[in-house]
Formats: sequence, structure tokens, C-alpha cells
Amino acid sequence: MALIVQKFGGSSLATAEKIKKVAARVVAVKRQNHQVVVVVSAMGKTTDNLIALARQVHHQPPGRELDLLLATGEMVSVALMSMAIEELGEEAEGFPGYFAGIKTDSVHTKARIMKIDPARIRKELEAGKIVVVAGFQGLGPENIITTLGRGGSDLTAIALAASLKADLCEIYTDVPGVFTADPHRIPGARLIRCLAYEEMLEMASTGAKVMQSRAVEFAKKYQVVFSVKSTFEEGEGTMVKEIEVQEGAVVSSVSVDENQAKISVFRVPDRPGIAAKLFQALGSENINVDMIVQNVGRDNHADISFTVNLTDLEKALSLTREVAGCLGAERVSADDDIAKVSIIGIGMMNHPGVAGRMFQALARAGVNIEMISTSEIKISCVVRRADAQKSLEAAHREFIEKN
Amino acid sequence: MALIVQKFGGSSLATAEKIKKVAARVVAVKRQNHQVVVVVSAMGKTTDNLIALARQVHHQPPGRELDLLLATGEMVSVALMSMAIEELGEEAEGFPGYFAGIKTDSVHTKARIMKIDPARIRKELEAGKIVVVAGFQGLGPENIITTLGRGGSDLTAIALAASLKADLCEIYTDVPGVFTADPHRIPGARLIRCLAYEEMLEMASTGAKVMQSRAVEFAKKYQVVFSVKSTFEEGEGTMVKEIEVQEGAVVSSVSVDENQAKISVFRVPDRPGIAAKLFQALGSENINVDMIVQNVGRDNHADISFTVNLTDLEKALSLTREVAGCLGAERVSADDDIAKVSIIGIGMMNHPGVAGRMFQALARAGVNIEMISTSEIKISCVVRRADAQKSLEAAHREFIEKN
Repeated sequence: MALIVQKFGGSSLATAEKIKKVAARVVAVKRQNHQVVVVVSAMGKTTDNLIALARQVHHQPPGRELDLLLATGEMVSVALMSMAIEELGEEAEGFPGYFAGIKTDSVHTKARIMKIDPARIRKELEAGKIVVVAGFQGLGPENIITTLGRGGSDLTAIALAASLKADLCEIYTDVPGVFTADPHRIPGARLIRCLAYEEMLEMASTGAKVMQSRAVEFAKKYQVVFSVKSTFEEGEGTMVKEIEVQEGAVVSSVSVDENQAKISVFRVPDRPGIAAKLFQALGSENINVDMIVQNVGRDNHADISFTVNLTDLEKALSLTREVAGCLGAERVSADDDIAKVSIIGIGMMNHPGVAGRMFQALARAGVNIEMISTSEIKISCVVRRADAQKSLEAAHREFIEKN
Repeated sequence: MALIVQKFGGSSLATAEKIKKVAARVVAVKRQNHQVVVVVSAMGKTTDNLIALARQVHHQPPGRELDLLLATGEMVSVALMSMAIEELGEEAEGFPGYFAGIKTDSVHTKARIMKIDPARIRKELEAGKIVVVAGFQGLGPENIITTLGRGGSDLTAIALAASLKADLCEIYTDVPGVFTADPHRIPGARLIRCLAYEEMLEMASTGAKVMQSRAVEFAKKYQVVFSVKSTFEEGEGTMVKEIEVQEGAVVSSVSVDENQAKISVFRVPDRPGIAAKLFQALGSENINVDMIVQNVGRDNHADISFTVNLTDLEKALSLTREVAGCLGAERVSADDDIAKVSIIGIGMMNHPGVAGRMFQALARAGVNIEMISTSEIKISCVVRRADAQKSLEAAHREFIEKN
């Protein structure tokens, strides 16, 4: 008998029909004599619809009320999933996240899990019930309902798996697992059998958003092995766990992010602290800066380029113009016609020369590289957006298909 | 400064636009230096839609999960109403019913309020906030979410008004108040300014369903004076309170219920306990029997007729046939072509002869009366459904328009 945590995302629960199919899958596992905890997201586009509704009554919906509103989405899924399980003859016990022992801090819309008390869940499991828990939500101080941020249901599942010392944690989604590249763009993309936590983390920042980073970080911290697999198709999916560098593929995946824009500040007088001033200003407005390149130039002036999410461009640009003015910069420009191509692999760590191969592959494809950023297990290049597809193909050919 | 509880029903909150209008109304009252507690129902047809969804995954949705599901409806309203109030510059604090101190028993889908702890609400009111509470729901033992049954939001409002010792309790709805008859059927129907609890209670059983009976019973028990008025129209509405018999109108309202059916059992051998056997059997299947007429007949045989809700007819009929067989009855018949016309008035108590006037009025209108049932303050007559409208008109003319 194993204890299994299974998480189902909104697309797997979009209709009553789908909920019934998922329930049948859950019941089948239970009847193999396992204990099952099911973590559910809100049905389909529920969360987006609720946010739209909130925006109709408030120009910037306050966090406390937004959490109360959004938490209803997963509650509906919990209730329906529990019913569907009971219709199949098994006993179910459904919990909103805030009654399932998930205690968080009080930061609305992106609360952190502080503590999980799994006693109630354990009790129900031992009574032979299938436990259904609302993902994405918890209970903050003074009985306030909190939510864990976009994709927070993954975090709920991983955190419950950790606190229950589950034998398996399965993240069910609408794709068969994690691929070496987006199969819609690269027909030769392959399912990755096994991925390191670090690789999964880097992927979240490269446009291949399979899972919320915080969930993967949590899994890494508590060494929760989990798999990502398809709800309605058979298959083992991708297992994510601790991988020793020597076991890993040099490059495990290739991805592209076309939701980035580049801002450049030209000829800033090169004094200590200029970058700090600029990026602190952006940070205080919650603008996420991804790549940063600064070349200290001629005659004590520097050029600084950085990328931000396309949605933040306008706000970032006006802030940058303001700060650049104070710093005495010559000019600020923006470019929203870029794409970021990335390769990720834990094996890079002991394979020098990967960067060189990447640049050469792009060069051979006739792609000009505009910015470069590297980490221990990732190399990202900014290219023209028109070059995105051929860059992706070139990188996939070089690092995946050749192996 | 007064403490005012205002309850808004689903039709008053059906869209974001309506929620904003209600919020403006609430804020205006707050700015007249009052403390305001707002009790909200689920938006529009939300509850019906959720029940339909539940029926898609379970042939008979279990109460515990159904409560969890339905409770989301009012939570959405609470969140949106709080946001809309804050958008107008006032502070709001929204609570699901189960965090607002409303403790119930564990009877799902029709829980009873056991205790209200208004400390948290009081604290927020004293901090100058508008408190928004989800109607219809409470917290049962062991942190289970319960609901109070159809129309339970009225009960929440009345119960909160009682426990907070509110100065005013206002039940807002989509009509301007309680009328002497349905204005759609009787154009001369008038708004009733003042109604006794008992009259309001009797109305709930006569087809003029303005409010849940339990809410009115609760108000009567705790002497909560409340008014029923329109959300979007001006007007004082109808005040419901304790009324001395001598103050009341002889007949305050006239109504018709066309959702009844009649079952008759002919020639039951007249032994003690036959009625008990029959109505216990119906009661154990939760079939609500309204009027009962038994005439102990010739040669130790009796005929029994009774009415049930049209929706229960089939079930009631098959149960009755079963029991009638055991009792040795000659025949069972059903009639779904009836209507029940009622007059209600606390003043009847010390005005003898009202029944006689009623029967005469119907006779003058050429209506044949098939069954009669009376209480201290109500007279109901079963007539052919085709006669419903002229019966209603005759009774309204006789008792209301003449005065």
C-alpha cells in the first residue's frame, strides 16, 4: 500500500464529464489498495473569469477579497470531485485548503506556506477515504483565506506530499510530460524521462512554463520526487528528482520565450551604483527583470540593456526614462521585437564548451545574437523575433537530435 | 448612530453592475454615520447552476459536498460586494458564513443555527468598517461547512440582527414589499405597510413565498422587527413585527397556490390509526402534506383527501396506493387540476364570520369549493384550477378592496 498524492489541473477538470473521468482514474488507484490524496485546481478558466468579474467592481481588486473570491474556484472542484468519487462507490472527504491544515503567512494572492498539519487528512485516509483537497489556498493568521499565487495547486500537492511523506506525487496535466522542446514548434521533440529539479526550475524562466517555480523549489528543498504526466493519456510522464551531474544529459531541453522586450539605456555616466538605482526602481514596482547586460564603455560611459516581460514594458519604460534622466543618460530605447532562446541541462556543469557550440549553431543558422546570459545550467540568447523558430530548431538539432 | 443589518437577495446581485449599485446604497447608509452589516445571497441563478452541475456528477449529490459547493456562491458575492464598497472609498471586511461566528448543527443542506458569536463582526464594526457576511451558510461541528436551506440568507440576516441587537433589519428584494395579492394577477393589489409575524408565516404556506418560514419564525422568537423592501426602488416597504390582534386588518392578504395536487382515498375501513399510518408513511419520505380532510362516512368507512406539492405527486401517489392496499381501502384517486386560494389576517381572530364571507364571495363568483382548511388566521379553499383567478379576484374584492 502506497500513499499517493495526485494533482489535477484546471484543464483536466474543465467539465463535469472530465471530472467524472478523473474520479474514475482516482478510484482505480484507490482500489489497487493505495491511499490517495487528490489535489484539484479550479475548473477550466474559472480563475480568469473570477478575476475579470473582480475587475468589473474594483479598478485594482484588493488582495484579501481577491483571495476570498478565487478560493471559491477550487472549492467547487473539491465538492464536485468528492461527489464524483462517491458516485463510484468510494468514500471521499473534501477540504477547502483552509480546512486541510495548510497554514500560510498573510501575504494575499501570493502567500507562503508556513506549516502543514496533516493530522486531519491522515485520519480520513486511515478511515479508508479518498481525501480531496483544494489546491492553491490556505489559511492565514486570524482565519483569513489566502492563495498561493498562480499555479499554486502544484505547490499544495508537493507540500502535502512532503508533509504526508507520500510515496508518490503525480502532477497531472494536459500534456504527456516535459519535452525537449515545445512539440508544436519542434515536431522531433522528445518526452524527457527524467529531469533534475534545477533544470525544471530554469525552464520556468525560459518560457517553457510547465510548473510554478515555488512548487519545484519546495520539492527540491524537501526532496519530493514527483512526476508530470497526462490526465487522459497513458504514459509514465517525466520524473523530476535529484540528479547527479554525471548522470544528466548535457542539454535536456530547448525553449523560446517570445513574451520579452528589451530596454536599453545608452551612455550613462559610469559611476558606482547606477545599475542599483535603476533596478531597485524597477523592483519596487514589481517589474521582473530577466537578462541584464552592461558593457562599461568608452570615456566613462556605460550602455545597459535588460529584458522585461512584454506586459511590463510600458511601465518599465516610463520608469527607466525617469531614472535615466536623473542619472544623466543620453538616451533610452525599447525593442519589443525580440525572442529569448534558451538551452538547459544539468550536464553543462561538467561539459565545457557548450556555450561555444550554441553560438556556433545559431551562427550557422544565420541568426544574430543580441544579448547573452548564462547560468551554471542554462544559456539564453536574445535574437530577433523573426529568428526565433530557426534558432530553436538549430539548438534542438545541435543538442538533442544529435544525441 | 444605528446598527443596521441589510440583506440583499440574488436578483439584487445578479451582475457586477447591480453589485456596484447595491454597494453605493450601502455606502450611503454608512456615511449617514450608521454601522452597517450587509448579508448577501449568491448572484442571480448561481445556486441553481451549481446544483445542476452537482447532478451531472452524482445522481443524488450528498449533503456534505453539496454544502461545500453551494457555499461558494455566497462567498463570491461577499468578495465582490466588499471590493465594490472599497472601490467607493469605505473599508469593508468580508466573511464567509463559517468565519462570521455562525455555528450550526451538522444537518447538511438544512442546518439549524445553534449559536452566533458576533464578537468578530462587532470588532470590525467598531473599527469603522462595513461588514459583509455570506448568507445561507454556517460552520458545523469539526469545521464542516453547512448551509441553512433555501432562502437561508434571510435567516442569516435575522439571526445576525438578533445577536447584534441591531436597530434595523432590512430584507431587500426585487419587489417593493409584501402585497395584498400578487400584483401580476390582481392589478388593484396594494402594498401592505405592516404585517404580523404570524401572517407572514401563513403566507409562506399559501403560495405567496416572500421569505423562508424559518427566518420569520426566528424573527418572531427573538422579536426582530424587519422590513421587506425593494433594492432599486425607493419606498418604505413592508414592516413585519408583533401586532396586537385589534390593530390588524381583518384580512391582510389573498393568495393562490397552483402547485398543489389532491389525493383521495375512498372507503377506508374506519379503524383508529388509519390516518396515522398513511401520513407517517408520507412523512418518512419527506413528502409535505398540506391540507387534510377526513369525513367519517357511512357504514364505518371513511374518505380521506389531502393535498401535496405537485412535484411530490407521483411519489405520494404510489406510497398512498401501497398503504391504502394494506388498509383495505376501496380506491385511490389523484387530481392535479386544483388550486388553493387563501385569505390571511391576524384580525380574523376576533372577527367571527370571516369564513362565511369567504365562502359566499366564492359562491357569488360561481366557484365550487372542494376542500376547506382553516387556522386561526387563515382560510384556504381548494377549487378547480380554472377557477383560481376568479376566486382570487372575488376574495380580494371582498376583503381588501372593500376596505
